[in-house]
Amino acid sequence: MGIVQGMTTFDQATRATRADATTYDVRLDDGYAAAGRLNGGYLLAVLARAAVDASPFEHPISTAAQFLRSPAPGPATVRVEPLRAGRSTAMVRATLVQDGAAHVEALITNATLTTGAEPDWSAEPPRMPPPAECAALPAPKPESGMTLSARLDLLFDPDTIGWRHGAASGRPETRAWFRMVEPVEPDPYVLALAVDSMPPVVYSAGFRGWAPTVELTWHLRALPAPGPLLLAATGRLVSDGRFDEDVEVWDAKGRLVAQSRQLALLGRVAPPERSRRP
Amino acid sequence: MGIVQGMTTFDQATRATRADATTYDVRLDDGYAAAGRLNGGYLLAVLARAAVDASPFEHPISTAAQFLRSPAPGPATVRVEPLRAGRSTAMVRATLVQDGAAHVEALITNATLTTGAEPDWSAEPPRMPPPAECAALPAPKPESGMTLSARLDLLFDPDTIGWRHGAASGRPETRAWFRMVEPVEPDPYVLALAVDSMPPVVYSAGFRGWAPTVELTWHLRALPAPGPLLLAATGRLVSDGRFDEDVEVWDAKGRLVAQSRQLALLGRVAPPERSRRP
Repeated sequence: MGIVQGMTTFDQATRATRADATTYDVRLDDGYAAAGRLNGGYLLAVLARAAVDASPFEHPISTAAQFLRSPAPGPATVRVEPLRAGRSTAMVRATLVQDGAAHVEALITNATLTTGAEPDWSAEPPRMPPPAECAALPAPKPESGMTLSARLDLLFDPDTIGWRHGAASGRPETRAWFRMVEPVEPDPYVLALAVDSMPPVVYSAGFRGWAPTVELTWHLRALPAPGPLLLAATGRLVSDGRFDEDVEVWDAKGRLVAQSRQLALLGRVAPPERSRRP
Repeated sequence: MGIVQGMTTFDQATRATRADATTYDVRLDDGYAAAGRLNGGYLLAVLARAAVDASPFEHPISTAAQFLRSPAPGPATVRVEPLRAGRSTAMVRATLVQDGAAHVEALITNATLTTGAEPDWSAEPPRMPPPAECAALPAPKPESGMTLSARLDLLFDPDTIGWRHGAASGRPETRAWFRMVEPVEPDPYVLALAVDSMPPVVYSAGFRGWAPTVELTWHLRALPAPGPLLLAATGRLVSDGRFDEDVEVWDAKGRLVAQSRQLALLGRVAPPERSRRP
């Protein structure tokens, strides 16, 4: 598990080393944490590395995960159990285990995507101001445990981060340009990180607080082109202490490359009245 | 597993009888099949029955499932393995086993939803013509193996089933009013069936053919009011032999009660050129 020449920091941090037929050793990196907890998308990238290595196919096209417990930085293992292997897809169960306990359990489908496949039909990409008209969030305080922020170059559509100065739009919508700070082009593992890399989408509807993920499913729809990614998050319902967050990832060629939806718990601060449904 | 007085046909068909601490006996009913295969939503209702019975909570709020193999009608078992039990949620792995092989594997989160909770924020329901202006699909031929159709009263927005007479809208969008034919009001298990009960959403974009589900995740967002349900399906990308289908279920009070997304395989018939992205 030493440093390997030529690997990016992110590749190192998501590396899964085969220990036996169904077990991979990983080292969870505290550089990918939000609010002092390792980021869910980062953990899914780690699981996907092991699942793909254990499969005859190259890409993790579908991942559905339950977040059972928050793992600590440091050594852990990924257990990969094959569920079905066909001619074009392989399905596995991948479990992140630390101190003998399952922390994340995922169902991952692997296949080999066609490079440069033209869509048969696609929705239109969201409208987004150019990066020069977008804004970064202020660097978090070191004590916030928000180490992930230093790894990512996120430039937000200003309309979607008005909550920063008390002007929440009242709608759960966040959009940002995404790049890794280190020079690494997007790949499926970067996309796993990207789908869970923005502040909770309900912030723009006036809610606050830490929003732990219950379940997150993401689909890899195409291999991303080099260049910046466009992230567009929306939500449909905030109710009974839970909300949904949908994230689409569009690549530099304007292609939809990943889709996610997570169900998350609402932070404990009540919303301002004006953000309610009209 | 005999007929129980007072249970609906659907309750009977989804009944899970505890055999031991982690095993439930079920009997898969061939009355819930599409194209000769048991419907995925029906199978998820069966899994949810067992998962909820094995949990201290009342409702299956999140289900993510991989469809490994198509099970046959008749006896099967559901294996429920607890992954985590907390104060307000319990997470389990539920596997549908037949002839010793896993056929569907699901991660299910249970909790107890608040009856009549008012949303803190909600998107608007989709626009939909009243039932009197909607249309049923013709009854399928007996040899089509489409037994599910006889259980459901689906009335479609005519704009979304133009594909029936060669006038596909060119967009993956389907909307329908949903009721069970037998007098049963919606509950979480009916919602599991509902999210996978319409023709593949890509039919309205000009595609055809059987569309097997790879992965389906659905979230139960609220307990449905009595009355008809409104189903609204959309898709975002058809590419590389796969498509996504998102279904929202709205209840008779205009509340979003369920959300699903599935990744499915495209049928083998090529789309007409005009249905491509403009």
